[in-house]
This record gives sequence, C-alpha cells and structure tokens, in this order.
Amino acid sequence: MKKIKLYIAASIDGYIARSDGDLDWLTKYPINPETNYGYDVFYKSIDTVIMGGQTYRDILNMDFVWPYTDKTTYVVTRNSMGTKENIHFITENVIENISYLRNENGKDIWLVGGGQLITMLLASDLVDEMIITTIPVILGNGIALFPEQPKESQWELQSSISYKNGVVQAKYKIMEKHL
Amino acid sequence: MKKIKLYIAASIDGYIARSDGDLDWLTKYPINPETNYGYDVFYKSIDTVIMGGQTYRDILNMDFVWPYTDKTTYVVTRNSMGTKENIHFITENVIENISYLRNENGKDIWLVGGGQLITMLLASDLVDEMIITTIPVILGNGIALFPEQPKESQWELQSSISYKNGVVQAKYKIMEKHL
Repeated sequence: MKKIKLYIAASIDGYIARSDGDLDWLTKYPINPETNYGYDVFYKSIDTVIMGGQTYRDILNMDFVWPYTDKTTYVVTRNSMGTKENIHFITENVIENISYLRNENGKDIWLVGGGQLITMLLASDLVDEMIITTIPVILGNGIALFPEQPKESQWELQSSISYKNGVVQAKYKIMEKHL
Repeated sequence: MKKIKLYIAASIDGYIARSDGDLDWLTKYPINPETNYGYDVFYKSIDTVIMGGQTYRDILNMDFVWPYTDKTTYVVTRNSMGTKENIHFITENVIENISYLRNENGKDIWLVGGGQLITMLLASDLVDEMIITTIPVILGNGIALFPEQPKESQWELQSSISYKNGVVQAKYKIMEKHL
C-alpha cells in the first residue's frame, strides 16, 4: 500500500499562498543544494502526485514547464481539462478513486494541495504523513492550509528540524487508532 | 522597555481552543516538572499579564483559583468587570494603554490571548516575541490563534525544541525593520 504524504510550506499563521495564489513570500526560502528541506529525498520516495484543480491552474500559470513529468499526476477537479501525457483528471468519486490509488503497489503519493483537497482527504482518513515546512512569516491572510473541517485526528511527531534561515520543518505520522 | 511576549499552545491547524473555549485536548500534554515547556523560566521573566475579555471569562469559569496572583493583570474588554486586586480593565484606547505599559521599566509582559487581542497587537507592531507550542493534534475547528488580519510581518527563529510527546515549541523574535 502507498502512503499519501502532505509535503507543503506554510506561514506561521497557516497560509499556503496569498489570496490570489501568489507565492512571492517563499522566494527568500528557495529549495537549493545547501537548503534542500529534505525535498530530494522526499521526491524520490513518490511516484504519484495529487492536487486540486486550483493548485493545478496555479502551477500552469507559473512561468516554468510542468515540474512533475517523471511522476503520474492526478488532478481533482469538477471538469476534466483535456488529456495530457501522465496527467489524469478525477472528476467524480474522489474518495473512492484516491483510496484505489493508495491501495496500489509502488512508491508513495505526494499530496501537493490545496487546502480544500487536504481537508477532504483528512476528513476521510486518507492522509498518512504530513511534512509541514513553516516559513517565519505572518501573512495575515491568504489561502489556508487547513480550512475549517470537522474531523479531529492525533499525530505522532517523527522529526522536527530547524534551518539557519528560520524555517522549521515538522514531520508527522497519523497515530494508529487502538480501539 | 518591556517586551510583549505571546506564549501559547495551538493545534497543528492553528486553534487555541475548541469553539466553546474547551481545552480538554491539552490535558494529555500537561506542564509538569518533567515536561515544563520552558514555562517556569518564561513565567519568571514577566511581571504583567494581558488578555482579552473572553479569555478572562474562560479562566474564571475554570475550576481553579486565579493563577496569576503574583502578576499585574490587564484585561482588554468593552465593559469593566469591577475592581479586583491586581486585575485592571482596559476598556478604551487599547493600543495607547498597552504601548504605555510596554514603555515602562520592569520585567516583560505575557500576552495570554485570545485570537482577537493577538491580532490587534500584531496589527500595531506590539508583539515582540512569540513562543508557540504546537500540540500534535488536528482539531478541525475552534478559536483561531491568528484570525484573519491584514498585517504582514517577518520573524527570526530563536529556537525550536521538540519533546518526546510530539510537542514542538518554536520561539520567534520580531525582525527589526531596516529601511
């Protein structure tokens, strides 16, 4: 079985982007060989990427080529946006489809975002790990990492790393329920 | 000059209490001699406590005696709630009054909460330090640590400590503005 892993950067006050999707506040904290935030190791651990439709459009609107060509991508969206090599659209039965992907063999699944998809998967117990990279900034408003949602869950801290530039990265694993 | 320091516990998704003020989810992570979360050292560094009216009422409703008898308390509230020894009510000119307290000599000021007062003071550059203790729980909803507010700010990480029980405590200092 694959694991679904959230790997995401957020501000101290829990925003993953400005209200218009802008990520300019992240540019001072780039992923590079000196400060990799575990990205290379993480990226090698996955073969599948899932994201919401808004996140997909935001990535398309950025000024670079599609970054996940070597992974299979699933975009959760109301309307299919055509067929592209290695990019699939999940337009219905979202939970069933993602559960199916998770039950397959292979490497793990990167849950890229955004907040709505994270919320939906958390509510269905479909998030196995969370690697949250906290940027030392208060944005004040924007797109929330965890939009309000009813499901409560307990997590086990696996590691917490701080970087010289003030970034803190915490890695959590869902706590197994012992009934 | 005193420093105003936020010292507070929050869930991974940024809530400081359930919607009704309940803190039951914190009881598994008590402050005790073995796991003190730096509380004793912090408590000795302050001589003044400030909090919002709702936080004040929540504390009064808890089943214990007033915990800050040896500190001077200021409660920010629309209506004064009578006079009590060592407890004062700030009902108007909140920013001016708190700026005045901050400019006095003495030990530092503990900003206890809640979200509205934190937001107000952040918006007025009146928070000097934040010690945020993250509990490994997703609550899903509740009272937000950082209700939406327009002011952006940059912070310097001073330390990040993780505890065996999965708690991560990050200490931030406001970044000086160099114009």
